[in-house]
Amino acid sequence: MKIIVAPDSFKGSLSAVEAAAAIARGVRRALPHADVVEAPVADGGEGTLSCLLAATGGERVEAQVLGPMGKPVRAAYGRLGDAGRQTEDWPEPETALTRHNAKVGDTAVIEMAEASGLTLVQLDERNPLLASTYGTGQLLQRALDDGCRRFILALGGSATNDGGAGMLQALGMKLLDREGKPLAPGIGGGRLIDIAAIDDSEWDSRIAESTFIIATDVGSPFVGPSGASQVFGPQKGADPAMVRQLEEGMTAWADRIAGKTGVSLHELPGAGAAGGLGGAFLAFFPAAARRGIDVVMDYAGLRRRLDGAALVLVGEGRIDGQTAAGKAPMGVAHEARRLGIPAIALAGSVGAGIEPLYDAGIVSAHSIINGPMTLEEAMSRTAELLEQTAEQVVRTFAANLPS
Amino acid sequence: MKIIVAPDSFKGSLSAVEAAAAIARGVRRALPHADVVEAPVADGGEGTLSCLLAATGGERVEAQVLGPMGKPVRAAYGRLGDAGRQTEDWPEPETALTRHNAKVGDTAVIEMAEASGLTLVQLDERNPLLASTYGTGQLLQRALDDGCRRFILALGGSATNDGGAGMLQALGMKLLDREGKPLAPGIGGGRLIDIAAIDDSEWDSRIAESTFIIATDVGSPFVGPSGASQVFGPQKGADPAMVRQLEEGMTAWADRIAGKTGVSLHELPGAGAAGGLGGAFLAFFPAAARRGIDVVMDYAGLRRRLDGAALVLVGEGRIDGQTAAGKAPMGVAHEARRLGIPAIALAGSVGAGIEPLYDAGIVSAHSIINGPMTLEEAMSRTAELLEQTAEQVVRTFAANLPS
Repeated sequence: MKIIVAPDSFKGSLSAVEAAAAIARGVRRALPHADVVEAPVADGGEGTLSCLLAATGGERVEAQVLGPMGKPVRAAYGRLGDAGRQTEDWPEPETALTRHNAKVGDTAVIEMAEASGLTLVQLDERNPLLASTYGTGQLLQRALDDGCRRFILALGGSATNDGGAGMLQALGMKLLDREGKPLAPGIGGGRLIDIAAIDDSEWDSRIAESTFIIATDVGSPFVGPSGASQVFGPQKGADPAMVRQLEEGMTAWADRIAGKTGVSLHELPGAGAAGGLGGAFLAFFPAAARRGIDVVMDYAGLRRRLDGAALVLVGEGRIDGQTAAGKAPMGVAHEARRLGIPAIALAGSVGAGIEPLYDAGIVSAHSIINGPMTLEEAMSRTAELLEQTAEQVVRTFAANLPS
Repeated sequence: MKIIVAPDSFKGSLSAVEAAAAIARGVRRALPHADVVEAPVADGGEGTLSCLLAATGGERVEAQVLGPMGKPVRAAYGRLGDAGRQTEDWPEPETALTRHNAKVGDTAVIEMAEASGLTLVQLDERNPLLASTYGTGQLLQRALDDGCRRFILALGGSATNDGGAGMLQALGMKLLDREGKPLAPGIGGGRLIDIAAIDDSEWDSRIAESTFIIATDVGSPFVGPSGASQVFGPQKGADPAMVRQLEEGMTAWADRIAGKTGVSLHELPGAGAAGGLGGAFLAFFPAAARRGIDVVMDYAGLRRRLDGAALVLVGEGRIDGQTAAGKAPMGVAHEARRLGIPAIALAGSVGAGIEPLYDAGIVSAHSIINGPMTLEEAMSRTAELLEQTAEQVVRTFAANLPS
């Protein structure tokens, strides 16, 4: 019997790769002869890089870049490997990209959180007026230098609200003030208001030869009540006055971008991802946005791996009626259902109102908590609890199968 | 599909009857067309009465008797009904009883905790030197008056350590001191040392015409390191000096009983149940002891109800490697396995090391806790958590069944 183990990360305790390993141990205890396939997934946010490297046998390429607050950090991009690759796994770029006639080189995964992530910044230092995506641009440049021309851009977990301005600067875009002088490299959201013109005379020409797939779950537009600054600004350290300042800057910046490229990011869904970094890619790059989990499933070959499976186990930190839509477990379950394979979810906590999950192909959801305990205890014991619960759930599932 | 719901109580939060109702709601949500049979069970301790009344459509008969500390309490015995009864359900009395050629009257369930239970006594009033089983004897007498001649004696949850002396007094046995004078009715464990002789001239003659089945899980002998006083005395309020006094009294009392009846209770397994009440029944009554869960399964007709079931759900407050042996869930699972029916356990907490359960027929064990929470929260939400978990577990179990 083939069983696919495809969890998302359990945030704060286990990466998706670690969660898959723990679940797989439990499945093997329940069914020692099963063919257990570890296929960790991500929704385009943090962990996307490690999932795709695990699935393809790829490698991390480290580089020193500027972190979100301007201090040097060691970051890595990922170069996908060929392990288990089949032609149909890696889809041709979207229609919007084919006109660019991209040269096919190595495929790189740029996870913006590696260079510009919120977890790189101490709580009391968080400041989206200053935080910049410059380091993400440097990482991308390094991958271009290494010959990569196909890119997967994982947007999520950002410390920034700079509309991608820093990233553009790192790749040669000059952002000019009212006097025509270039702003210093690595501006944050607080300086967007000062951008009067965009000079692409030194823009990295290799970008136009490349293809970019933006993997994200965020459908926020660039500005407005559901835009980057108002929805995500506060969790990056912005108080209400800062949110207003960010909103003003992002609006002016979107106006400049529209003037330069003809692309109006203001209300474009997805442009608000990662503090507007998504919008900068959509306006200046040959890029298309896709649901994060779909990108991961494609490049990890998950559809092919699901073929012939009797069960797929999905999971994430919390599952309830509210958090379900668009998440990685739903994406995997949906694909599994298409193939007639039941999906069962494991989660740190399982809330009420999960009936909509059933329609998406999730048969049932089980909490991994095995008795009264605090959140702290649960998070420190996640691997052990996942293993135990996976074993019991698979035993229950298999109770009806001919042995 | 027929699904049997046969949990024990979840101590401190739900009776077995309430637990069965909650689980059944969850099962019906998962499988609206299933034939869901609520068959709560007990191990001979508290809850045995209500389980047997629920299964047979019997009735509670209330009476005022003396509580363990001598104050009047309202207690009830149960008279089994005929609902769903079939001849093979109610077994003939054990071989040891048949020689008594019992008249078959109505069958009564006497749960000693109703009249002499620990929960009837405030924490600071607990004192096994004083606590008496006199009320249990009164309840039994009332059932005899009402015409009952078959008895199920549920021993468990006792406040007493009187070796059944109080119960015997209530039924006419005179316990004489060294001067040949009868001790006052309702003695506790502290007066056992004063019993010099036993006078049965006024002993209730209807007892010899009746049959008694002792339902208990306790295999303790009357005295010794694993006996009633040393093992259970402390939880009934005895300090070390009191335990020594109880042990002396019980030893002397066992000597008197041996002299009177020829039955040596000292090391007899089961004689120590309910503070030695079990021993008094074994010595003076036409009685036989059986595993509590077996008695409940027989009289509730559980074996017949299991026939043709696809699944049986068992449960109790805690399941782990240590607490498993001899418990009600194990008894039900064992019977289910004999019929080829998988048993799945639900519990407040599921510990490690439960592999021995698998051999007993329990396929898997699931905690009902659906996220980090305190014991208090878990106990106040047990019904809701049971319902939710039962629904998810049955959905998982049924994922493989042809729909």
